[in-house]
Amino acid sequence: MTIHYPNGNQNNYPTKSHANSPAIPHVSLYGKRGMSLEEEINDSNAYYLAHEIAVIHKKPTPIQLVKVDYPKRSAAVIKEAYFRRPSTTDYNGVYRGYYLDFDAKETNNKTSFPLKNFHEHQIKHLKACINQGGICFAFLKFTAINVIYLLPATKLFIYWDQQFDGGRKSIPLKNIKQDSFQIKYQLNPIIPYLDAVDKMIAESGK
Amino acid sequence: MTIHYPNGNQNNYPTKSHANSPAIPHVSLYGKRGMSLEEEINDSNAYYLAHEIAVIHKKPTPIQLVKVDYPKRSAAVIKEAYFRRPSTTDYNGVYRGYYLDFDAKETNNKTSFPLKNFHEHQIKHLKACINQGGICFAFLKFTAINVIYLLPATKLFIYWDQQFDGGRKSIPLKNIKQDSFQIKYQLNPIIPYLDAVDKMIAESGK
Repeated sequence: MTIHYPNGNQNNYPTKSHANSPAIPHVSLYGKRGMSLEEEINDSNAYYLAHEIAVIHKKPTPIQLVKVDYPKRSAAVIKEAYFRRPSTTDYNGVYRGYYLDFDAKETNNKTSFPLKNFHEHQIKHLKACINQGGICFAFLKFTAINVIYLLPATKLFIYWDQQFDGGRKSIPLKNIKQDSFQIKYQLNPIIPYLDAVDKMIAESGK
Repeated sequence: MTIHYPNGNQNNYPTKSHANSPAIPHVSLYGKRGMSLEEEINDSNAYYLAHEIAVIHKKPTPIQLVKVDYPKRSAAVIKEAYFRRPSTTDYNGVYRGYYLDFDAKETNNKTSFPLKNFHEHQIKHLKACINQGGICFAFLKFTAINVIYLLPATKLFIYWDQQFDGGRKSIPLKNIKQDSFQIKYQLNPIIPYLDAVDKMIAESGK
């Protein structure tokens, strides 16, 4: 099957990865409003890990190495490399014996979430994980209103597939409110998303 | 749990075609002697993925970005970067609802496996995953005799911890034979390690 990325969205990818770079200063004070969704998730995962609640990590961005120097008596230096498109989602891990797998997306839109934020390979990966009994979902953050939803992957698939069958290219906010769990900010962890995961697990009857 | 894909989209599963792709060279029986353990695992994981048996991936190597160029109308180029030490093991994924997590090590030794092949953070990560109900293990390959063992992490921990208590700095081969599952090469997948994982799961009573 041909994989196509709507609106040439793949151009966003290297920029996004660069934004993830540790070279970008960390925002912490008065944190929440200034933090990216990725920072909020990483922060929450660090809390869950430190408190032995779950082991969930963001995967490193895959890199295609072209030229690497190995200077004597010092660390190898990558001199030429390119970002590669990941073949999976960004996050996975284990919680209460369950395999968790998810991705995190942000939009500046206010009334709907564009499906072009997702890529075909991510949807395929999530479907494969669901098939193996994983707990899969996506974070959808509306940055303009600073609101985060956790959308179960099975719901996401419906909207994703409909778009190729004459359906909308975005998920209306009112549908998201209905199909998702809203994650409310708190102090520690910043986004207590495992509460929503508990509900997903309970509903799945696993 | 019943899994249903809207529009019967299951057929889109990417790696089915991947398995037949001419881009991926097929490994002959003679080929395996030349393959690294990592290649053997990746190859087997591709087989398991394509046949919808398990979803297990190697994590990318983490990179510390220092300088990235963004030329007009072409892909971002990483001009300076360094390898970072991973905070987890190299492989994880989901199989039959279970979270799998493991690392893979090789030695040229013939009679024992040096523990220095493992790092403290990997052991710590494996212990955290076991705590969450994950199925964790390590591949130990003796390259000189081309033999691979799958050692459950709980056994590895015993040898690891003993070395700081006056114990050996390596695991004798005879102990490995006793505590591990030997993975015998076959055609497809090259290393059918999920058979050993099935036994681990059965023994764990999970």
